[in-house]
Amino acid sequence: MPRILRVAAAQMGPTQRKDSRPQTLARMIALLEQAAAQGAKLVVFPELAFTTFFPRWLLEGAELDTYFETELPGPATQPLFDRARELGVGFYVGYAEKTPEGKHFNSAVTVGPDGAILQKYRKVHLPGSVEPRPNARFQQLEKRYFEYGDLGFPAFYGPEGWGAPVLGMLVCNDRRWPEAWRVYGLQGLEMLLVGYNSAAYDPNGGETEDAGLRTFHSQLSAQSNAYMNAAWAVAVAKAGDEDGSGLIGGSCIVDPNGRIVAEAKTLADEVILADCDLDLCAQGKEKMFNFAQHRRPEMYGLITSRTGAEKPARKVG
Amino acid sequence: MPRILRVAAAQMGPTQRKDSRPQTLARMIALLEQAAAQGAKLVVFPELAFTTFFPRWLLEGAELDTYFETELPGPATQPLFDRARELGVGFYVGYAEKTPEGKHFNSAVTVGPDGAILQKYRKVHLPGSVEPRPNARFQQLEKRYFEYGDLGFPAFYGPEGWGAPVLGMLVCNDRRWPEAWRVYGLQGLEMLLVGYNSAAYDPNGGETEDAGLRTFHSQLSAQSNAYMNAAWAVAVAKAGDEDGSGLIGGSCIVDPNGRIVAEAKTLADEVILADCDLDLCAQGKEKMFNFAQHRRPEMYGLITSRTGAEKPARKVG
Repeated sequence: MPRILRVAAAQMGPTQRKDSRPQTLARMIALLEQAAAQGAKLVVFPELAFTTFFPRWLLEGAELDTYFETELPGPATQPLFDRARELGVGFYVGYAEKTPEGKHFNSAVTVGPDGAILQKYRKVHLPGSVEPRPNARFQQLEKRYFEYGDLGFPAFYGPEGWGAPVLGMLVCNDRRWPEAWRVYGLQGLEMLLVGYNSAAYDPNGGETEDAGLRTFHSQLSAQSNAYMNAAWAVAVAKAGDEDGSGLIGGSCIVDPNGRIVAEAKTLADEVILADCDLDLCAQGKEKMFNFAQHRRPEMYGLITSRTGAEKPARKVG
Repeated sequence: MPRILRVAAAQMGPTQRKDSRPQTLARMIALLEQAAAQGAKLVVFPELAFTTFFPRWLLEGAELDTYFETELPGPATQPLFDRARELGVGFYVGYAEKTPEGKHFNSAVTVGPDGAILQKYRKVHLPGSVEPRPNARFQQLEKRYFEYGDLGFPAFYGPEGWGAPVLGMLVCNDRRWPEAWRVYGLQGLEMLLVGYNSAAYDPNGGETEDAGLRTFHSQLSAQSNAYMNAAWAVAVAKAGDEDGSGLIGGSCIVDPNGRIVAEAKTLADEVILADCDLDLCAQGKEKMFNFAQHRRPEMYGLITSRTGAEKPARKVG
């Protein structure tokens, strides 16, 4: 029996700092309903989807707390879970997690059609810095607000109704790190879900990468790592201008050949869909990327034994 | 002082089984001279550049031996080394190596402008099989004819006259394996040289990937891994129809943003050039791909501890 999963990427336009939680959640429910009306069984939302991308500001205390979920679902997010269960669709959503012990993570969950959380993931590759940059209008303080994810890269099965795919989750910057994809690939990954908030330009005016190049980088990362692990990928942006800081769009659904099969055209709330034939992963996994036949881990030692780059010694003579 | 290295990709058209060694070497010298006349300091030739891609046949004994170099330079290859030294250009070339101990490798060397070998590399990711496929017109017997490379991924410096770049070499299928690039990236890679012979279609008529998709895969691998390691890449094909078996072209020079800056247009002997600003690698290495700041090797254990893919355990319930 063919395993076709109709998946939706629910790209979100910008969310401003002043936007209320119910206002943003209503947009997400509208996207969910659009996707469900078109037959999607799994809807992928962005990273930190319930709020603006708050690590761009130096925040403290009570205001900072408002961006974190102490439970999921909780009072502010329950309506999304309820509506999804009514519609019989599952979803991936990124959120800021605060644990009962007071730890903070940049997390994502995948929720099944019955409303139950199938798996949680905590972002491993935190960009940015701990200390704010002096005199900068906008910061990137993920290393300040979050701890490094401590759950590894845990592949998991989607439900039978989705074709029981082997799924994996990443969050934003993780998608640029082939190590993360490969750890999933080594677990038989068939579809990778990733939400992101990626700057469209240096909001402090400092450098030369424009939005076109940054969107290219984002898609190149998803396309190549999908290909090199023979898996589908669904990469979903929060896009547009958030309080004067721009975010790229370019949400896309990528097949196991690395080809984009659906792509967002706007920087706004937008649903794109694709019918993903999970059995398309088999050719790559059995031939070109048959890991058991072709990988040579005894040659990869530096990947786990060294963190930073170290240049070779110069030859004398 | 800016470090600009003018590099050439010397794509080669097909070499037939009946073509003589001097005939093929003359083509290579002509390509070298074209590149040198345009100011190239480093010329990159394909994998197994001195002969046809012989692993497509089941061969034995004396004929098989004719495809291997027992010394490099040797009598059949010395004129290329001599002409390069006269012109003051260096080169990368792929060749079949037979050691004094009788071991066989699919190797490459990079030669400096003085004619001395700067570094040797032996292909790690051998595709194909040991045993021939029954009743197939064409084989892929690299696992039969070669041993797995035993030199690791040894980064090395080019000479001062090239800007002293940190160089790395791969051979063909290696370029699809992000582990190989990352081991070089962890040594401060600034330019990766790789030659290839990649099938344009299944010569036995068995499958669906056409030449366009295969060329896309080849370029996607070079582009993404160059970007994710903030390095230049020079990927060079032997292309066209060799005795009824087609090879893709698509030779390209890729910048550290993953953009193709020069690309071959034919399936024939063709030189393409680019001025590669080695300092363009710095932005990626200092920011997005600052490995010391952002990599999390404690999460990558499966990459070295597991060879083949293993699916996760199914949850009960």
